[in-house]
Amino acid sequence: MEVVLTPIGYVRSTRKEATDDGWDAELVSIALDAARFGPDALAGVDSFSHVEVIFLCHLVDAAKVETGARHPRGNPDWPRVGIFAQRGKDRPNRLASTVCRVLRVEGTVLHVAGLDAIDGTPVLDIKPWMDGFSPRGMRRQPAWADAIMQDYWS
Amino acid sequence: MEVVLTPIGYVRSTRKEATDDGWDAELVSIALDAARFGPDALAGVDSFSHVEVIFLCHLVDAAKVETGARHPRGNPDWPRVGIFAQRGKDRPNRLASTVCRVLRVEGTVLHVAGLDAIDGTPVLDIKPWMDGFSPRGMRRQPAWADAIMQDYWS
Repeated sequence: MEVVLTPIGYVRSTRKEATDDGWDAELVSIALDAARFGPDALAGVDSFSHVEVIFLCHLVDAAKVETGARHPRGNPDWPRVGIFAQRGKDRPNRLASTVCRVLRVEGTVLHVAGLDAIDGTPVLDIKPWMDGFSPRGMRRQPAWADAIMQDYWS
Repeated sequence: MEVVLTPIGYVRSTRKEATDDGWDAELVSIALDAARFGPDALAGVDSFSHVEVIFLCHLVDAAKVETGARHPRGNPDWPRVGIFAQRGKDRPNRLASTVCRVLRVEGTVLHVAGLDAIDGTPVLDIKPWMDGFSPRGMRRQPAWADAIMQDYWS
C-alpha cells in the first residue's frame, strides 16, 4: 500500500540548511499553496496559542533512513535505541511533527515561532494544539531525552 | 509535487468504525510491518511514558475533504473556523496525530492506551513524546476546543 500526499504549503525560514540546535533564532512562516487554499483555511488559527505542524524532512537521503536501532545523533554516550524511540529525521517516511507558537496570520501565510524546519520544507498538515490532546497521566522519559534537547531551541 | 509514503504498520483496535467519543474504552495496539521491521525498531520505546502516533484516516472520502472553513463537527453552536484551526479528520492529506500512553512492547507490536484510531488504520510514524517538544510559553485555546473534548476520551 502506498499513501500519496500533496504538500499544503511550504516553510519559509531564515535557516537554509539542516543543523541540530538553536532553532528559536530563526524567523519562520508557512505559506499555504495559494492555488488550493484561501485565507478561510486559516480562519481562527490565531485563537490558539500553538499549532502542531507535520512536515516532510525532504532533504533526507532515502538510503540513509534507519529502520532498526542506533545511538541518537550517533552519540555513543546515549543508548542505542530503536528509530521509533527517537525523533531523528533519518526515519521511515521522513515525517516530523512540531508544536510551535502562533505569531500571526497574514492571508494565506502563518507566521510562527519555534518551528525546526528549514526553508523550502514541504508542510503536510497544520493542526491547532488542544489541551485535550496533551499527554495524559504521569510523564516519564530517559535522561538522554533531556540531554539531547539542551541546546535545541536556544 | 507528490509525497509517497508507506505505512510502517497498522492499528489493531476493538473499535471498528469511526465514531466521535469514548476512545479510552478501546484496546489498541500497533503492529509494525514485520517484513520491514524487527523488534530493534521499538527498542527503548518503553523507556518513554508516551508516544506520538501519526496515522492516516484512510476511510475518509477524498470528496469530503474540507479545504476552507466550517463549524467543527458541523455544530452551529461552535464558530466556523478554517480546517487548519480544527482537528477534524476530513482534512487535506487526512493525517491525524495523537499522543498516547505506552503500555508494553511485544516483539514488533506496541500496545498503547488512548489512541483514537480504528482497526486497520495505516500508521505512518511513531515518535517518543519528549518534554522538550511540549508547547512552550503561555497556552490559550477557544472555549469550543474545551467543549469538543468533553467526552472524547472517556
